[in-house]
Amino acid sequence: MKQLKEILLNIRKLASAESVLHWDMETYMPEGGGAFRGDVMAYLSLLTHQMATGAPLRDALARHIDPETGELVNITLNDDEKRIVQLTRKDLQKQLVLPDAFVEEMSKHVSATQQVWTKARKNNDFAAFAPYLEKMIELKKREADYYGYEDKPYDALLDGFEPGMTTDRIAALFGELKPRLVGLVDRITAAPPIDDRPLRQTFDTQEQWKFGMGIAKAIGLDMTRARQDMSAHPFTTGFHPDDVRITTRLDETMLLSGLFSTIHESGHAMYEQGLPKAHFGTPLCEAASFGIHESQSRLWENVIGRSKAFWEYALPVLKTHFPQLQDVDLADWYRMINIVKPSLIRVEADEVTYSLHIMLRFDIESRMMNEGLKVADLPEIWNAKIKDYFGIVPKNDAEGVLQDVHWSFGGIGYFPSYAMGNLYGAQIMNTAEKDIPAFWDKVRSGDFSALKHWLNEKVHARGRYYDPEALIKVISGAPLSAEPFMDYLEKKYSEIYRL
Amino acid sequence: MKQLKEILLNIRKLASAESVLHWDMETYMPEGGGAFRGDVMAYLSLLTHQMATGAPLRDALARHIDPETGELVNITLNDDEKRIVQLTRKDLQKQLVLPDAFVEEMSKHVSATQQVWTKARKNNDFAAFAPYLEKMIELKKREADYYGYEDKPYDALLDGFEPGMTTDRIAALFGELKPRLVGLVDRITAAPPIDDRPLRQTFDTQEQWKFGMGIAKAIGLDMTRARQDMSAHPFTTGFHPDDVRITTRLDETMLLSGLFSTIHESGHAMYEQGLPKAHFGTPLCEAASFGIHESQSRLWENVIGRSKAFWEYALPVLKTHFPQLQDVDLADWYRMINIVKPSLIRVEADEVTYSLHIMLRFDIESRMMNEGLKVADLPEIWNAKIKDYFGIVPKNDAEGVLQDVHWSFGGIGYFPSYAMGNLYGAQIMNTAEKDIPAFWDKVRSGDFSALKHWLNEKVHARGRYYDPEALIKVISGAPLSAEPFMDYLEKKYSEIYRL
Repeated sequence: MKQLKEILLNIRKLASAESVLHWDMETYMPEGGGAFRGDVMAYLSLLTHQMATGAPLRDALARHIDPETGELVNITLNDDEKRIVQLTRKDLQKQLVLPDAFVEEMSKHVSATQQVWTKARKNNDFAAFAPYLEKMIELKKREADYYGYEDKPYDALLDGFEPGMTTDRIAALFGELKPRLVGLVDRITAAPPIDDRPLRQTFDTQEQWKFGMGIAKAIGLDMTRARQDMSAHPFTTGFHPDDVRITTRLDETMLLSGLFSTIHESGHAMYEQGLPKAHFGTPLCEAASFGIHESQSRLWENVIGRSKAFWEYALPVLKTHFPQLQDVDLADWYRMINIVKPSLIRVEADEVTYSLHIMLRFDIESRMMNEGLKVADLPEIWNAKIKDYFGIVPKNDAEGVLQDVHWSFGGIGYFPSYAMGNLYGAQIMNTAEKDIPAFWDKVRSGDFSALKHWLNEKVHARGRYYDPEALIKVISGAPLSAEPFMDYLEKKYSEIYRL
Repeated sequence: MKQLKEILLNIRKLASAESVLHWDMETYMPEGGGAFRGDVMAYLSLLTHQMATGAPLRDALARHIDPETGELVNITLNDDEKRIVQLTRKDLQKQLVLPDAFVEEMSKHVSATQQVWTKARKNNDFAAFAPYLEKMIELKKREADYYGYEDKPYDALLDGFEPGMTTDRIAALFGELKPRLVGLVDRITAAPPIDDRPLRQTFDTQEQWKFGMGIAKAIGLDMTRARQDMSAHPFTTGFHPDDVRITTRLDETMLLSGLFSTIHESGHAMYEQGLPKAHFGTPLCEAASFGIHESQSRLWENVIGRSKAFWEYALPVLKTHFPQLQDVDLADWYRMINIVKPSLIRVEADEVTYSLHIMLRFDIESRMMNEGLKVADLPEIWNAKIKDYFGIVPKNDAEGVLQDVHWSFGGIGYFPSYAMGNLYGAQIMNTAEKDIPAFWDKVRSGDFSALKHWLNEKVHARGRYYDPEALIKVISGAPLSAEPFMDYLEKKYSEIYRL
């Protein structure tokens, strides 16, 4: 195992270097640096790929697991080691089954499609984008065939984001979710609107920064092993559990946006900091899935950060930064930070409507991949569904079917992870509330350490040892379900909107 | 040549990635990131070394130049290409002649020596450091033997910093310099001291930052291809001519320190930005030498930045940032930013005394390498020379022979480049003053573009095409001499100190 781990660690060093270069590109790099930076990152990426598929790794791995059958051939491995060789084989196979010519064709098509999409969205021109998306789906079907799948082609792609998830499983979960969610949105839309005038002021960005940093530290982000910077789009990246970076953006007219982005990214970053360092370099020191990662950011942002208990602690602190909020009381504040408003744009959606945006995309993606849904029909289907869910209709495709970048870079199968994060998060929080004595009292007093340590133990330290559904079952003792999430939403928003 | 250039460019990509990681380490990296960062950088460094000495490069090179004799075998090369293959062969040979066992021994000894030096300086314990320095000199003599030399062992090391320079050549230049320099210092020390009370105030660091950035831009640093950040020790690093980073440190009690550091590093950075991009990846797009690099920083910092003409333009600007300086007049300001004060510490030395600190180190280094000077005798020799040059004596070895980090990392032969930078810079500026019409009038009006473009053409764009002495001769039409530097100093300081 020593040799295998050494090769994996070297691969991780190169990937980590590339991440630093990417972080710098998004935060500090002067404009002029872009062209060469792209070349350097592409070269590091090539070297990483070569090492991750090269003979030394394959030979070292074959001493422990049969590359063809996946059967373990080294009988002395402990459970961690078994999982390491199984995941390494899985990751390796995914790279090996794609012929070089296909990888090159895909890479060229992604480049072209991203450019076309950028222009198409700007010009609100779906017709220009359509042939590129059609070709993308065709390539993605071929990719799915290379990977192989038991039931449906889309399953092969989902596995890259949520290992073990299938079209049917997600459809079942979303099927549970949808009627209750649509019903809740309907009741909320019918309720009297919440007054948010106190938020419609300008808020000094330096004070926003200080408050946000204070909250990040308070909830448990270890700043000796992390830092925050500014970037155009907030993100989290981990070079190692001891060096994690988050970014935010601040706008003096949008207090909540910057604040909740910092809490969201801190949730991601605490996951990265809590991964099992002893296994660094191996797949065990990686996140369980995109959706589990998203569960960590969303539970801190929404379940904690938008709770009344949290603001019992945080509102007085906020008022020291912004005396202009002196007269706002907790009950009103709690309502206005939880306003639900059906909107056309996914990234602007609130905690309640967000999952509906995802379901729409899941429905379209899965049908394109599995059932031959025609790209030409997308705008019509999109607009009909939005009308159905929210009672509003996009003025044009730019604020409809063209709004997201994901399809243009080939990220088919990515969207469901966002909504899965909500489901995972609610089920995890349900268990945490039972496990941690006087949980909400602790939150009210600004003590988040019990939750952080609980998550460290139950989620973070387990890295990629379990696939996401298995992880949720181990943590909560129950199969994954949409119920905890819906129960949480209905309870919370019935109070807020006095339904 | 295409294949050779491609390999060289790939090597440069890895080296550039390592530079980004180093920059991040010195500027933003959280404390926790240090351990793994060291591992990543060491691994990138190893990969770079492997590529820079590997068969693909050697084979590609051998098609153009005989690796043994250095004779060109491809007769179709143009002058640039000839120089590229010659320099590549030279750099390659330097790596190939060192046996792996020697490289490992040196690397271990450097690690150990750096730790010992840090402690020894702190505890003022030369005896603890002495055996490590002895071993270092022994290793450096072996290194010199591996490289080979015509006359003296120290020459082989000097060539790594100032290609073509020898012990005798530098001794001759320093011999010219020394009597005039010591005489000037004597006359200055005897003159009445300059009143610098206006500098003994506190200066807001944010305003210092703004002023410094303004000056960097004014003298010609292209901020679309550069940026400045804070670090413990100011430095410049170039990832590519289009992405250059400088750092500074600011202290509210030391206005001049932060300002002149920004100008100094901007001089380095403009050199990096001006290197011939078309040759990027090849040795032609590298600096001619450490000393030529230092000439660029020092001429902007001292010859321009500490001139009266410069402050005719800059003092009114400075006053808008610091109204507390409102009553300072130009003549007084000019005198107080040029105070000469013999001191024990090299890095705190002024423009006049600095070169004497270097000569002392050159004398000791060259005698250790060439004449068997005993390490045990160093403190005594050091203190006697300092007394001779400045009339003061270190209280202890921490402010004497133990003060510099260079010997501990094996940088024997590095020091002379600092003083050579002064000589190169003065001779370059001499020529610039003649070539550029109404030169000082331009400076007085805040127009630095003529000088910047002149340096771009005469120095920067030539990259490593010439060895340093040849470069100076091509630029100035005369052999390198200490005279321009001494003439400049004597004229400037006779006025300032009214000698």
